[in-house]
Amino acid sequence: MRNIRLIIEYDGTNYHGWQSQVNAAAVQDVIAGALRKLTGEDTKLSGAGRTDAGVHAYGQVANFQTDSRIPAEKFSYAINSMLPGDIVIKSSDEVGLDFHSRFSARGKKYKYLIYNDIHPSALLRNRAYHISDKLDFVAMQNAGPCFVGTHDFSAFRASGSSVESSVRTVTDIRLEKQGDLIEMSIAADGFLYNMVRIIAGTLVEVGTGKKLPKDIPEIIGSGDRSRAGKTAPAHGLYLVEVYF
Amino acid sequence: MRNIRLIIEYDGTNYHGWQSQVNAAAVQDVIAGALRKLTGEDTKLSGAGRTDAGVHAYGQVANFQTDSRIPAEKFSYAINSMLPGDIVIKSSDEVGLDFHSRFSARGKKYKYLIYNDIHPSALLRNRAYHISDKLDFVAMQNAGPCFVGTHDFSAFRASGSSVESSVRTVTDIRLEKQGDLIEMSIAADGFLYNMVRIIAGTLVEVGTGKKLPKDIPEIIGSGDRSRAGKTAPAHGLYLVEVYF
Repeated sequence: MRNIRLIIEYDGTNYHGWQSQVNAAAVQDVIAGALRKLTGEDTKLSGAGRTDAGVHAYGQVANFQTDSRIPAEKFSYAINSMLPGDIVIKSSDEVGLDFHSRFSARGKKYKYLIYNDIHPSALLRNRAYHISDKLDFVAMQNAGPCFVGTHDFSAFRASGSSVESSVRTVTDIRLEKQGDLIEMSIAADGFLYNMVRIIAGTLVEVGTGKKLPKDIPEIIGSGDRSRAGKTAPAHGLYLVEVYF
Repeated sequence: MRNIRLIIEYDGTNYHGWQSQVNAAAVQDVIAGALRKLTGEDTKLSGAGRTDAGVHAYGQVANFQTDSRIPAEKFSYAINSMLPGDIVIKSSDEVGLDFHSRFSARGKKYKYLIYNDIHPSALLRNRAYHISDKLDFVAMQNAGPCFVGTHDFSAFRASGSSVESSVRTVTDIRLEKQGDLIEMSIAADGFLYNMVRIIAGTLVEVGTGKKLPKDIPEIIGSGDRSRAGKTAPAHGLYLVEVYF
């Protein structure tokens, strides 16, 4: 038995997220289907991050066990030949049998794209959150670092989530602006459900002046979801990298 | 009678190009249809560049004449409310009656995107030309300036084009690389049919070592289409700006 790891890029626009859904196309199912054709085995594919419908990935990680003798690095080519163009295996390698994409992950990096112009962008319509009000980028940059560190992020978790610990360590956050496009990169040891999208939505409210940078520590401290900003839409979010 | 100018961004993936086609959706028709609904007039829309099927635009320019009293800058909002998400009017203003998007244009700027990685990109599948062989970017950068200046570009024109003058002046060419993505920007007083795509295809052959930078002046001088590289695909091409 061998354990094969895949790095996966996808355009989430036409999928109901990573994870298998009843009656809805999930990225996981499309890849598992290709693997079944390739190996003849009823392969189970584990992913590192359960991205929602519309969320994209540059570096989703998944692994599967197989008795196939296909050389590890050839899997990427073989699987790609059976996938639609909006899902691509970027690399494949063999890992120890104890490796598990989700349980072995020590952290993740996401990015969130905001398109700030009076009119939307045709080319980025499924790739960035459009905000027509002029955003104060400097205020957003000032607010960003408030998220770094070990905090209880209950205020930045979708309400109704399960009762596991809501303490996470954000190791880095960066905000960059190029023309009309604002990119937020955020790395942490883990993220609560919708955490990146709620942080993005909160930073947008800092950009519009509805919140101030100095409000952020208070909002985090409150643990109150209703004090944070709106959940920014899925289509601006990208899973960039998983750390092991 | 007023003359209104539009700046238009579009994702060309789902269109048969800018210009009206029988039995095929063209960007021009979609906008003209919206204008007819808006003004009640049988509006004729002239575009600056006849982009082919799959070609994108950040700054296509078009104009139309109207008796409507809608303030010029409001046209962008009104038209956008009737357009699909892959076509966006970025601005609208009133220009003199002698202004014509095509005949008044003094030059254009295009960009061409090349994605260079062993595997394709899911997110850029309709936005960049995928080359899996490692490209020598420095050689491509050395070849670029050979195109600048006033030349007979017959070797870089789709064969079978009409017999108008094939002399054009390329005012600027830039090649930049960011990670796996190579961007070529090129500005000229005008372009022959497929000229940017043939230049891009030729630079790719320089990148793979099939041609040398020093071959370029000779190829231009030959006026022989068969000596230049292949026509790079439409989906890597973007009309960026039209100069007046």
